[in-house]
Amino acid sequence: MTLRKSWVESANDVACPFPLNNLPYGVFSTNRLEPRCGVAIGDMILDLCAAEEAGQLQLAEAPVFDVPYWNDVMELGPEGWQILRDRIEALLAEGSTDQAAVAPLLVPMQDARMHMPFVVAEFTDFYAGRHHAENVGTMFRGADNALPANWLHIPIGYNGRASTVVVSGTDILRPNGQTRAPDAEKPSFGPCARLDFELELGAIVGSASQMGAPVSVAQADEMIFGYVLLNDWSARDIQAWEYQPLGPFQAKAFATSISPWIVTRAALEPFRTQGPDRDTPLLPYLEHSAPMFYDIDLSVTLQTEDGPTCTLTRTNSKALYYAAAQQIAHHASSGCAMTPGDLIGSGTISGAQVHERGSMLELSWGGETPVDIGDGQTRSFLLDGDTVTLHGTAKGKDYQIGFGTCTGTIRPAPIFP
Amino acid sequence: MTLRKSWVESANDVACPFPLNNLPYGVFSTNRLEPRCGVAIGDMILDLCAAEEAGQLQLAEAPVFDVPYWNDVMELGPEGWQILRDRIEALLAEGSTDQAAVAPLLVPMQDARMHMPFVVAEFTDFYAGRHHAENVGTMFRGADNALPANWLHIPIGYNGRASTVVVSGTDILRPNGQTRAPDAEKPSFGPCARLDFELELGAIVGSASQMGAPVSVAQADEMIFGYVLLNDWSARDIQAWEYQPLGPFQAKAFATSISPWIVTRAALEPFRTQGPDRDTPLLPYLEHSAPMFYDIDLSVTLQTEDGPTCTLTRTNSKALYYAAAQQIAHHASSGCAMTPGDLIGSGTISGAQVHERGSMLELSWGGETPVDIGDGQTRSFLLDGDTVTLHGTAKGKDYQIGFGTCTGTIRPAPIFP
Repeated sequence: MTLRKSWVESANDVACPFPLNNLPYGVFSTNRLEPRCGVAIGDMILDLCAAEEAGQLQLAEAPVFDVPYWNDVMELGPEGWQILRDRIEALLAEGSTDQAAVAPLLVPMQDARMHMPFVVAEFTDFYAGRHHAENVGTMFRGADNALPANWLHIPIGYNGRASTVVVSGTDILRPNGQTRAPDAEKPSFGPCARLDFELELGAIVGSASQMGAPVSVAQADEMIFGYVLLNDWSARDIQAWEYQPLGPFQAKAFATSISPWIVTRAALEPFRTQGPDRDTPLLPYLEHSAPMFYDIDLSVTLQTEDGPTCTLTRTNSKALYYAAAQQIAHHASSGCAMTPGDLIGSGTISGAQVHERGSMLELSWGGETPVDIGDGQTRSFLLDGDTVTLHGTAKGKDYQIGFGTCTGTIRPAPIFP
Repeated sequence: MTLRKSWVESANDVACPFPLNNLPYGVFSTNRLEPRCGVAIGDMILDLCAAEEAGQLQLAEAPVFDVPYWNDVMELGPEGWQILRDRIEALLAEGSTDQAAVAPLLVPMQDARMHMPFVVAEFTDFYAGRHHAENVGTMFRGADNALPANWLHIPIGYNGRASTVVVSGTDILRPNGQTRAPDAEKPSFGPCARLDFELELGAIVGSASQMGAPVSVAQADEMIFGYVLLNDWSARDIQAWEYQPLGPFQAKAFATSISPWIVTRAALEPFRTQGPDRDTPLLPYLEHSAPMFYDIDLSVTLQTEDGPTCTLTRTNSKALYYAAAQQIAHHASSGCAMTPGDLIGSGTISGAQVHERGSMLELSWGGETPVDIGDGQTRSFLLDGDTVTLHGTAKGKDYQIGFGTCTGTIRPAPIFP
């Protein structure tokens, strides 16, 4: 858990989110360069397309960095991932004999525009934050029925929509949809009035599992390529009207934002922790002895269009009840095939305290207690012009593993044809 | 609605499912030929890869039939689809001057093995059969609460799993999963005991819609490339335990079968019909004046391993309450981007009568009234070795539009690691 030094000086700062210990994977472009794979180091990005062309990276017989997404690297499997990471670390480590050859392949981060780092095969979103589930359950079903009967046994999840997963910085259009006011006889159609964020981690499946071939929790863990921050934007009024009996659909389908840098499983190894205490034992197919959770500090900030900026919540991914590896093992348990590029949302991560809640729905308790955001303003749900930003950091002794930010600004709903 | 004659004699038989009026699109291989796109005509398949190479089909500057899926053709858009259909019809019509050149490109259907006709981008399954929704609702919530409050207003749907959509003929492994017996305190994990089929139509989205850009019902109709039969295999015991509050997940994720031939929207034009009478008016974004439903006879047969074969149900797609175009318009209404290759399941199609029900759950009324399948045997749910086959035919005056069959045989559950 100590800093490994790089010849890229900015990477050695204790406050730098991208030291040599991190080496997260993204896709970037500049005014000069078409979108391509890169790795963050300090305040620079190493152009891996150029490094491969220059003969600095020979991972497979065919090139893997001639495309603007990481899915081809995923196909190399865990051994290939380790070889790549070792090689990049060797190129960028203090004292590297490759420094002279590699230095010209660095691009200042401030000149880069970030893109989706991978092609999302399918998106599945879970519901693994116990405090979140209890909060929402209490609001919708009362405190006595807060946790559904299955919740302590099953990592509850639903299939989301991959076509609207966007990279941080993409504007978010307020969705239209059907809602029914509590006192209304009929539903109406129009812009969502209770637009929300959800603070989540996203796990990216890197290795396939075959149809009909279940995987253990340990195998599922090995299949994970890396993690991103994930904002599961949610239209609460649309959700309330549509979600029975088949679950959330258009209330979630309009947009999901992810941070641009895939933080690898390898970078997070030092931050593994045991899971929560469980009064209710898990069925054997979900059990694990190794630590499958991570100690990652998370926060959410809100910036209004012309007003205050404030921190809405601070929590930690330790608050999750099911780890991504357990979710993937459950996902594959029916025989469902997992695909490289599958994105697995953790579910909203809320801590036990009020200021640790991971959504406006919980923070404002369904709008009953609007949140003071400073300058005399309050928010129950998001307004047009609001910018929501997720932050994530795993903190070592003298270094940190940063996720970059996951940000999005709300824009007015489209006019309906 | 009259037969158009082909020089392929077998296509002119009144009972042939694949006359010149149909021309459905699939992907086939033979002992000699790698998987490639083809069109069914009579008892033959026209090899479109070979036809393109021979200069008989010039659709775009780049070839579109050098890949074993129809997604590249979808990208050409509705005008391209019409040009292709017109060209194939000209090649195969009685009196065609191309007969001598085209005849060598025909492959006997009996020598062909069928593959998935397209890459499924995402799979969404709806719940648009009113009798099905009422039957299931009555079983689960009682007759007074059979239809959910939103059902007559929203085409209720959920995101399914694309990675396990398989072509007709693929064996179906009984899924494992969590279930809780009615009298049990805790859930257990093991093979599904209430395995079911669901008789559906699948609509294939051929044209994209952009994120944030809703589409009208008429526009959605234009986006549809074609239709297939779809069996949404369902594990009822897993579903009952998992589906609250986020909907069906592993109960459906293990497998979905489709028929191998994409019947084009153009082929089905003569069979359009008006939708159901609606006491409850739809919101304007779901309204349509043109007929958006189809008159397609549907049936399901069951063949046991060593026993009887019987017809389980006969119904018609007219029994649907929402058309695919309405479902897609609803899907895009939030700003959700639709993608070429999206598969849209109609929901189970059940008629009003007992023998018109589209699932074992309804036919056996949750197992209360096992179905007599002949030879002294009964079925409540599917057993290992059972083969379920869906059939679909639109009937014209002297011809029919066949879908081919959608079949799958149940095999024992995988042993869990």
